[in-house]
Amino acid sequence: MGRVTSRTPASRIEVGADGVVVTRRPDTVTAEEPLEVRVAGKPLAVTMRTPGDDFDLALGFLVTEGLVAGAGEVSTLMHCQDEGEDGRPTYNVVDVVLQPGVALPDVSLERSFYTTSSCGVCGKASLDAVRLRTPYDVATDATHWSPELLVTLPDALRSHQKVFDRTGGLHAAGLFAASGELLAVREDVGRHNAVDKLVGWAAREQRLPLTGCVLMVSGRASFELTQKALMAGIPCLAAVSAPSSLAVDLATEAGMTLVGFLRPPRMTVYAGEQRLGVAA
Amino acid sequence: MGRVTSRTPASRIEVGADGVVVTRRPDTVTAEEPLEVRVAGKPLAVTMRTPGDDFDLALGFLVTEGLVAGAGEVSTLMHCQDEGEDGRPTYNVVDVVLQPGVALPDVSLERSFYTTSSCGVCGKASLDAVRLRTPYDVATDATHWSPELLVTLPDALRSHQKVFDRTGGLHAAGLFAASGELLAVREDVGRHNAVDKLVGWAAREQRLPLTGCVLMVSGRASFELTQKALMAGIPCLAAVSAPSSLAVDLATEAGMTLVGFLRPPRMTVYAGEQRLGVAA
Repeated sequence: MGRVTSRTPASRIEVGADGVVVTRRPDTVTAEEPLEVRVAGKPLAVTMRTPGDDFDLALGFLVTEGLVAGAGEVSTLMHCQDEGEDGRPTYNVVDVVLQPGVALPDVSLERSFYTTSSCGVCGKASLDAVRLRTPYDVATDATHWSPELLVTLPDALRSHQKVFDRTGGLHAAGLFAASGELLAVREDVGRHNAVDKLVGWAAREQRLPLTGCVLMVSGRASFELTQKALMAGIPCLAAVSAPSSLAVDLATEAGMTLVGFLRPPRMTVYAGEQRLGVAA
Repeated sequence: MGRVTSRTPASRIEVGADGVVVTRRPDTVTAEEPLEVRVAGKPLAVTMRTPGDDFDLALGFLVTEGLVAGAGEVSTLMHCQDEGEDGRPTYNVVDVVLQPGVALPDVSLERSFYTTSSCGVCGKASLDAVRLRTPYDVATDATHWSPELLVTLPDALRSHQKVFDRTGGLHAAGLFAASGELLAVREDVGRHNAVDKLVGWAAREQRLPLTGCVLMVSGRASFELTQKALMAGIPCLAAVSAPSSLAVDLATEAGMTLVGFLRPPRMTVYAGEQRLGVAA
């Protein structure tokens, strides 16, 4: 298994009134390595990710892309015996074997799944295919979360971000129960990987759909993160930063609650405000 | 042409000691729409992007993915006559026609180019193919930039970010000449789109390779952004935030200068320090 961070030589430079001061000492940077996901030996996707929780990442990716319904459709997940230039295993290839009788939807050039470290469409070959069909209807999720509860989430997420404080280089995603209890946190160079790792964990724990849960992300709310939340049956996405127009559109259409700029004591609600119990 | 921002209903909520205050008023959000790039009518890639500079985005994508050497290999770029649900043109499909005699490298399932809004591998079907071959050797670029010059870049970039101040939802990328002159700025929901739009602009202006230039990005320095800079012959990548391990590795191998945490008056140099003229 790869390491989550690595050390690299670096020079800190400060420009001052009296000139430039250079301090040379090693710096800790976030590990970024490619992960290839194969299904029955056939390459399906390559993503740039932070090593760790690779099986959850592969499983979560399959779920949020609508390729499998849950962990029950997967037989085994294993690291392939690939080797790096130094002859040591890289653990950068995961092979997924599906249960007998489970078939992957047709993965042709028209719908392939080359994915990336920070989200996006991930292989919908035509615009019509950008929107996936979710098996879950979050519009019927009657959970309420008070604004007072929501403003506690950023601190809870931040307090569990182990790597960020050392590198400043990771996106974090946290899954919270309706009570505000933090269920799991994942960090990754790619924000969609962090979410896929959470969803993969939840799938493995037989927790799908994630009824009543809040997905909190450290950055922005894009179309793709919104879609990934929907594919896991999550009724509320909360982001520290701004949502995009398409994220707002999708959340509104799906009956999902979308909160942006969640920075205590404030937040901005873009969709599904009725779940926050604030009077109109 | 789509709009760069859109207005959406929103509720600002503030949690105070005396209870919750809700203010309802429209909010400006960053537009995010899919762009499909076709070559001679054949779908090649779909990216989630902020509308605008779509021809530069398509051209820059082809260049940074190593598919064409420059604008001279492209005959025409045009918006296809696709229509949205309302029957109006979406301007979300760009068709690229190559010059006679120019052939696209084989785009099979083993190497397809489904791309995303915020970077990544973008369609290298095996780990071996993650690293593209650049036609330019930035290691021989003898340009120097003083630390005093580099610390002026963030303010210059920020002062030209028109949309960010309104939405907080965009990545920015700026291209600076060796003198520190700002050549161009682009903003996008996807950081790799912002870079592709810059490179496409430069290709159209016959400025490739971008010898002596600094590419400054508002976020992190990932492997992919580093690779895109190399594919355009840019000898220096400077980022406001952290680099990843693979970005450091690639910059070091390629002889590129990589600056992270460029926050006046400080910066951290991870590769190619010799170009900053600071004594060892």
